[in-house]
Amino acid sequence: MENIRIKRRLEQFRKLMEENNIDFYYITTADYHNSEYADDFFKEREFMSGFTGSNGNLLIEKDRAGLWTDGRYFIQAENELEGTGITLFKMAEPSVPTTREYLKENMKEGQTLALDGRTVTLNFGKELDKLIEEKKGSLVYEIDLVDTIWEERPGRKSETVFALPEEICGKTVEEKLEEVRKKMEEKEASNLVLSKLDDIMWLFNIRGGDVECNPVALSYAVITKDNSYLFLQKQAVTEEIRQWLEKQSVELKEYDEINNFLKESNFSGKVLADGANLSFTLYKLLQQRNEIILSDNPTEGLKAAKNPVELEQMRQVYLKDSLVVCRFMKWLKENIGKEPVTELSAAEYMDNLRRQTEGFLDLSFPTICGYKENAAMMHYKATEESHKELSAEGMLLIDCGGQYLGGTTDVTRTYALGEVTKEMKEHFTAVVMGMLRLLNGKFLYGCSGRNLDILARGPLWEMGIDYKCGTGHGIGYVLNVHEGPQNIRWKYLEGMKEVPLEEGMVLSNEPGVYIAGSHGIRIENIMVTKKDILNTDGQFMSFECLTFAPIDLELISTSMMEKRDIKNLNEYHKQVYEKISPMMTDEERQWLKEVCREI
Amino acid sequence: MENIRIKRRLEQFRKLMEENNIDFYYITTADYHNSEYADDFFKEREFMSGFTGSNGNLLIEKDRAGLWTDGRYFIQAENELEGTGITLFKMAEPSVPTTREYLKENMKEGQTLALDGRTVTLNFGKELDKLIEEKKGSLVYEIDLVDTIWEERPGRKSETVFALPEEICGKTVEEKLEEVRKKMEEKEASNLVLSKLDDIMWLFNIRGGDVECNPVALSYAVITKDNSYLFLQKQAVTEEIRQWLEKQSVELKEYDEINNFLKESNFSGKVLADGANLSFTLYKLLQQRNEIILSDNPTEGLKAAKNPVELEQMRQVYLKDSLVVCRFMKWLKENIGKEPVTELSAAEYMDNLRRQTEGFLDLSFPTICGYKENAAMMHYKATEESHKELSAEGMLLIDCGGQYLGGTTDVTRTYALGEVTKEMKEHFTAVVMGMLRLLNGKFLYGCSGRNLDILARGPLWEMGIDYKCGTGHGIGYVLNVHEGPQNIRWKYLEGMKEVPLEEGMVLSNEPGVYIAGSHGIRIENIMVTKKDILNTDGQFMSFECLTFAPIDLELISTSMMEKRDIKNLNEYHKQVYEKISPMMTDEERQWLKEVCREI
Repeated sequence: MENIRIKRRLEQFRKLMEENNIDFYYITTADYHNSEYADDFFKEREFMSGFTGSNGNLLIEKDRAGLWTDGRYFIQAENELEGTGITLFKMAEPSVPTTREYLKENMKEGQTLALDGRTVTLNFGKELDKLIEEKKGSLVYEIDLVDTIWEERPGRKSETVFALPEEICGKTVEEKLEEVRKKMEEKEASNLVLSKLDDIMWLFNIRGGDVECNPVALSYAVITKDNSYLFLQKQAVTEEIRQWLEKQSVELKEYDEINNFLKESNFSGKVLADGANLSFTLYKLLQQRNEIILSDNPTEGLKAAKNPVELEQMRQVYLKDSLVVCRFMKWLKENIGKEPVTELSAAEYMDNLRRQTEGFLDLSFPTICGYKENAAMMHYKATEESHKELSAEGMLLIDCGGQYLGGTTDVTRTYALGEVTKEMKEHFTAVVMGMLRLLNGKFLYGCSGRNLDILARGPLWEMGIDYKCGTGHGIGYVLNVHEGPQNIRWKYLEGMKEVPLEEGMVLSNEPGVYIAGSHGIRIENIMVTKKDILNTDGQFMSFECLTFAPIDLELISTSMMEKRDIKNLNEYHKQVYEKISPMMTDEERQWLKEVCREI
Repeated sequence: MENIRIKRRLEQFRKLMEENNIDFYYITTADYHNSEYADDFFKEREFMSGFTGSNGNLLIEKDRAGLWTDGRYFIQAENELEGTGITLFKMAEPSVPTTREYLKENMKEGQTLALDGRTVTLNFGKELDKLIEEKKGSLVYEIDLVDTIWEERPGRKSETVFALPEEICGKTVEEKLEEVRKKMEEKEASNLVLSKLDDIMWLFNIRGGDVECNPVALSYAVITKDNSYLFLQKQAVTEEIRQWLEKQSVELKEYDEINNFLKESNFSGKVLADGANLSFTLYKLLQQRNEIILSDNPTEGLKAAKNPVELEQMRQVYLKDSLVVCRFMKWLKENIGKEPVTELSAAEYMDNLRRQTEGFLDLSFPTICGYKENAAMMHYKATEESHKELSAEGMLLIDCGGQYLGGTTDVTRTYALGEVTKEMKEHFTAVVMGMLRLLNGKFLYGCSGRNLDILARGPLWEMGIDYKCGTGHGIGYVLNVHEGPQNIRWKYLEGMKEVPLEEGMVLSNEPGVYIAGSHGIRIENIMVTKKDILNTDGQFMSFECLTFAPIDLELISTSMMEKRDIKNLNEYHKQVYEKISPMMTDEERQWLKEVCREI
């Protein structure tokens, strides 16, 4: 079936390209801050391609167009791109070129590539610069051609900025600035330009609401040896926050003034810039006047290792959030087949439970609720137009989380709604075995996620099954549900960071099985890296679990499990009962006891 | 106790340093080819420090001297350095500086560092060059000061070079040269200078005997687009090999002519050089006339992935070698406590069994035979002066291997000689569980040893125990018992290579427990990487086992093991019996059946 809406937009756009002598136009998913999720204002790639996933880049040519996305979205992208004429490029699959390789292969001498330099990173822009030089072509980066044809483009968000209560921050702005400046000194930099929104929020102990589900404000920051400048949208700043920032000796500036500030202000000395996050446009501005030291943002590692106050808040928040998941499971199990439930209404039920929870601010991402084969799409989103009705058979996958004053949560469970196949049980059991083996893993300090990934993935690999994504990601504190630098992945990818897991780093642990057209399973717990025993062999590390929600025993095939897998599961369920039952009614408690029974 | 011999040498040497205005003199373990083991002629570091380990560097100053070595040798080095006044620096331990960091910290402006440039690599030399520049000092690299005071220095070996029978090579010299030149082209190099001895042996299908246990000849090679030059010592070349090389269109040159050749001959174009192996001296020569492309030797990866002919030879050789280990175990178990046996005589018994085996050429390394606490020293070597008598208690560790026409072997077993403690059994069982989990591991293509190490190490880490070395190393074919680029290690070390495990790569799998002053355990099997199933999730890989020798059931604590660990062990022992018993006498066969019994 032809997708006329997208085809027409492409046609219109290609006319513009021709008028501007552009041969290739590159559209990313990013906002001006390389945020993982961008607000609607920034969704040019979605507007032009129809693909709604959270990662993907579109390259438009005169006669062709290609969309690159990662393993989470292969199935979804195939569906959404149908009839658009856009080719899907599966990232990281063998023999699939990267965008840069594609351009290298297909760009002819003297051709022109255009893109909005605010939406690509310094590192990527520099690579393109090099490529263009080889091709003797032109790179146009101060352009936004999509804006011209996007008539109903949404406005840029500017929600009110607020300060986090000091008692839940663990560190003051002053203390954080001191730590950051120390790291700057180590790298011999006098200045730091920050454009990564969650890093800026963390540093100034503030939050905003300009990106769906991410409590961040559109902002920039410049830290010099003596001053700190924070750039916020005027409409986002109340008198209260203005005064509060003044007390922290932070100089407030207007968001759109960043370019002029970098051009004109008189800060001198070397500038630290994070090549993976700073935009190409800002880089070009800095390049004109300062020596640039390319390095990770010092804020990144500091933010990732949560302090004791943050961790204590998170423990409490995860208990409340786990109670939500328990209640959802009870409702689902008791009502399925009795009242009409759809993927949408199930998600809505979960979201409402969360909304009623004390301290709730927002969802941490749009709830994913996939029934049967829909769950095989890792980041499936049910819509009013397209969703399934649930019945008393097969499995339901629900991946959800909340933003609370005190922490960001993320949890996935997969439930049997009735009869399931033997294969589904085997897949489910292997996923649970892997999740619990990683959760109970013990390792020497110095290990990164690359060393540990096989603990979770091993039981599936033994069955000849893989999941096309990482096992875990870092998680923010009242911030983005995905944050770095830590992660749990096995594959070496160019440009990826590999850092040791440090005390206090919070990670998801979410192996899964995705059988296209049949079923999807994912179980996700969140865990904190902690110090274990220290002896002459070194500092051992292990994980503390934050998530306490039952794992559906109806899907467990005990015969597949090793002794320790059974022990892991029983011990986990014992903890679930001990931690969650005190918050429950008698009736709920009885139910919980049953679903957490020993096997 | 003072070590007068070493102290006197150091004193004498420091006088020479003073006369030559040298503030720091650096002595490595390497020969001129960065071989892992160097022939006696090259053992300057051992001569000057008394430390006999196979890895270690000595830095001598006016008032101080330091020796750097790795985890395998910490205990041994402490013993051997006692009374020499030399400080031990434990490589890769937290807060222990590297040699370069030490020099950076301690070298004063304008001071002089001297070393024999033939014994350090290009990469390391370049780093020192940079450091010296920072310090405004001098680097003297065309010097060999140890030679001056080493009166009884052994002569340089030059054993006869021989060609491997073509039917066991799998590829002709011509085919190999073609593959190498293809890789050179990919890297846009016209020439390749090889100084790594095993790479040269592999490329020309020859072997020598100039390094103990390594069937390599001192040699260099230069490959241009049209020619191949092989530099051998005159005394090592018979008329037969001369004619044979001529038939392969290889131009033969004299070993000591390499410097002149690089200075004077008229090969032009860019030169590929392996920074990790080419000597600093050769690099300086090349630098004067050619553009250098730094890259791994193309021979390395080609040599590491064994071809089907080599693999079939190895399978046969490992069966014969495993029979040797079985017979040793039978002899040991039946005779211990009845006749006097020492670490030396036990090793001798093993070596003799091997020597009597068809196709035997040499040991692949000096047999390590450690009883009780001696086994806690990973690379312990019993000597006439210092060795233990065995009795019917405790454990014996024996690590040994042979060079055969058809393969290089390496195997370690640990045996109970009588009563052992519960702790020893637990340690042994965890080692066996780890070894078998790795051996039975299944993983996606793209994994390196870093992803897999935890399979072997996990059971020990869970007990809070680590071994201070890698889990596995690559193994040569009728070549060095240690070869790269593949390995199984978890730790990221600067400059380490990380390559995916390719089909045909042979690896050791040797977890262990080393409790200083008490006991040491190591179990080592050799395995080949092979393709497993291929499906839409990718190409899965697994291992084929080459070693078939019983694991001492007297040391197994079944209660610790998971179902699959027991299954792994029973299946392994079933294979040992099936493969080895046909080569045995009836009496031996009965014995083997018993030691390979199901648990």
